Amino acid sequence: MIQKDILPFTKPQIEKVIKKYPTPFHIYDEKGIRENAKKVNKAFSWMPGFKNYFAVKGNPNPYLIKILKEEGMGTDCSSLPELIISEKVGITGENIMFSSNDTPAEEFIKAKKLGAIINLDDFSHIDFLQKVAGMPDLISFRYNPGPARTGNVIIGDPKEAKYGFTKDQLLEGYKKCKNMGVKRFGLHTMVASNELNESFFVETAVMLFEIVAEVKKKLDITIEFIDLGGGIGIPYKPDDKPADLDKISQGVKKAYKDIIIKNDLDGLKIVMECSRLITGPFGYLVSTVRHLKHIYKDYVGLDACMANLMRPSLYGAYHHITVMGKEEMPLDHVYDVTGSLCENNDKLAIDRKLPEIDPGDIMVIHDTGAHGHAMGFNYNGKLRSAELLIRENSKVEEIRRAETVDDYFKTIDFSKLN
Amino acid sequence: MIQKDILPFTKPQIEKVIKKYPTPFHIYDEKGIRENAKKVNKAFSWMPGFKNYFAVKGNPNPYLIKILKEEGMGTDCSSLPELIISEKVGITGENIMFSSNDTPAEEFIKAKKLGAIINLDDFSHIDFLQKVAGMPDLISFRYNPGPARTGNVIIGDPKEAKYGFTKDQLLEGYKKCKNMGVKRFGLHTMVASNELNESFFVETAVMLFEIVAEVKKKLDITIEFIDLGGGIGIPYKPDDKPADLDKISQGVKKAYKDIIIKNDLDGLKIVMECSRLITGPFGYLVSTVRHLKHIYKDYVGLDACMANLMRPSLYGAYHHITVMGKEEMPLDHVYDVTGSLCENNDKLAIDRKLPEIDPGDIMVIHDTGAHGHAMGFNYNGKLRSAELLIRENSKVEEIRRAETVDDYFKTIDFSKLN
Repeated sequence: MIQKDILPFTKPQIEKVIKKYPTPFHIYDEKGIRENAKKVNKAFSWMPGFKNYFAVKGNPNPYLIKILKEEGMGTDCSSLPELIISEKVGITGENIMFSSNDTPAEEFIKAKKLGAIINLDDFSHIDFLQKVAGMPDLISFRYNPGPARTGNVIIGDPKEAKYGFTKDQLLEGYKKCKNMGVKRFGLHTMVASNELNESFFVETAVMLFEIVAEVKKKLDITIEFIDLGGGIGIPYKPDDKPADLDKISQGVKKAYKDIIIKNDLDGLKIVMECSRLITGPFGYLVSTVRHLKHIYKDYVGLDACMANLMRPSLYGAYHHITVMGKEEMPLDHVYDVTGSLCENNDKLAIDRKLPEIDPGDIMVIHDTGAHGHAMGFNYNGKLRSAELLIRENSKVEEIRRAETVDDYFKTIDFSKLN
Repeated sequence: MIQKDILPFTKPQIEKVIKKYPTPFHIYDEKGIRENAKKVNKAFSWMPGFKNYFAVKGNPNPYLIKILKEEGMGTDCSSLPELIISEKVGITGENIMFSSNDTPAEEFIKAKKLGAIINLDDFSHIDFLQKVAGMPDLISFRYNPGPARTGNVIIGDPKEAKYGFTKDQLLEGYKKCKNMGVKRFGLHTMVASNELNESFFVETAVMLFEIVAEVKKKLDITIEFIDLGGGIGIPYKPDDKPADLDKISQGVKKAYKDIIIKNDLDGLKIVMECSRLITGPFGYLVSTVRHLKHIYKDYVGLDACMANLMRPSLYGAYHHITVMGKEEMPLDHVYDVTGSLCENNDKLAIDRKLPEIDPGDIMVIHDTGAHGHAMGFNYNGKLRSAELLIRENSKVEEIRRAETVDDYFKTIDFSKLN
């Protein structure tokens, strides 16, 4: 058995769960999430005012977000429903980072009302925000370094990215906001996604520290916090090494000394907005094998499909698969693992080495704790699955029910059809 | 003004609609759909028993499917909700083609109950179908030519495709089903998607005709119909030429004479299952410009996003954009047209030449009548839009309401949260 196949539940335990909640479902591990949250908080504990704002986009289940709240995290929101989730969980005020782009008025109004930190994506949003909601005391800007920085593979080239202010706009923006009465300032960027290379995040910190120093020097404006964004990756593949958080932390610490302390800017707060790093590895998509198929290749047909997990179909992403009860068997078969969506790229794994599979086998697809259920759609009439949570006391709770056919039809009024 | 900018509504008309139904929304043109359906039916009218089974996946709105029913079409279904839609519209029996893969028992049971034509995707489904629902009188098989055929760009290489029977399995399958008492037989394939090259479909017909002749010769089984699948493309780009349906029709007719009539198999029915061809060009995503943004590139921010139309973000697909009231202006600006989803690839157009854009401009994104609304998701808390229909009498009806925040939360029970 390889390390990755170690699960927070045994085969008899999951079979018992399946009797109550038929597959497919996502199941999350509270204990794992809490321990991991503590580990992240500890790694960055030297940072003044450190807080991770969990990006709700990655997993908008309020029961998970409540756990993260209890571990000291805030939320990073970029839409009205995400703001409402935060509010329902009891996360308000500056525990919310509102980082939206192409933002409608009602979202600024709601964010302002909640007292969220508003992180503007564009220079033009300064006037827009003032017009629709009034300026808050604290404002943050998202910086897009453009040609000054290369993005990582997943997030792409910053100068092709729709996000953020240019450097000139940043300087202009802080000046303008100060003149409008804004008293406190933040600075944000996000130039990586699912990145395991630690130095990437240190470089990002250096980049932001230098701007903080420049803003102080040129405008006599003290930036109160920087938000390094999210983007710390997780080891999806069995031989991927997790990002070394201490390495990131120590690298940032050194830069903090070299730039921030040296420039008498000590006290600058550092925050982040990771979600994949926090919940990603602690979610599992549990699915049952329906059919085997042998044509030009061998196929395993699951009761889960890309409506439950989009990443393999969208990005060709690898998600490890454990076949319950067959962890010790040789991986001497090669399968494409498919769902039933009528779309040829509905494959959860391609050319995957697995033990011999039988109908009825329970497959556990790993690392679905972020960007899993959240990305589901109803294409081809597929319904989104339930979400379960294994509590620290080992009890399993349903924290989102499965969609029904009635849900699927909820926006259609059939009464006018005939 | 280029041809593509001619719309079934004027600017004052759409402004009136927007007053009642705020953007974004998809709007469909009943007159266009009906005329087009008649054109398709006419082009293939020589074919014995011709029927187009509209693939519900492309656009599952029952109000549109009802129009197509009135134009003589059936439905191609591949999930339980799609079968239910057909039933609600009053399409039953052999007006339904049930073409599913990795099929669960309940779908076979429902399809059998409705009297649908069951088109099996895999050899193993013969026994499975008999076990769960019993064998019907009529059975069809989906053929996957594997290395004998190259797929087109979009659907990919048939030998990497999860669908269908091999040739040997086909022959074995017909024999087996005959022995099980099946009396009537069909043959299906689908090896192209969004293909504009007419000869592709003629080659597909030749391939199936030859199998029909071979099955007759080797097994003395008369195949009653072939289903050429869907896959006829539409001209998304202004300089794309639409597929010439008469060219396809005449090419198939010649092959019918050469193979079917020559082998005394006259009477073989030919059916298809197009959806994009039928409704694709008659749907429009109407959106309002929220913001303009100028950084390393110039951006137009819409109130629509990839939750409303996924194809540009997923496939880099081109969808033409008309800016209402600016059709005669020079296309002397270049923009990325973005939505507000917190995902850098949420761009509905990249480097698009457009007239100068102002906030409040109404943008019409073309060819969203198939694989538009249907593919929408709720990622990042985005809500799916309404669908409207311009009736032949020019009246506008809402045929699907927009999702609300309450819909978004419908599968969450907040009562246990605190």
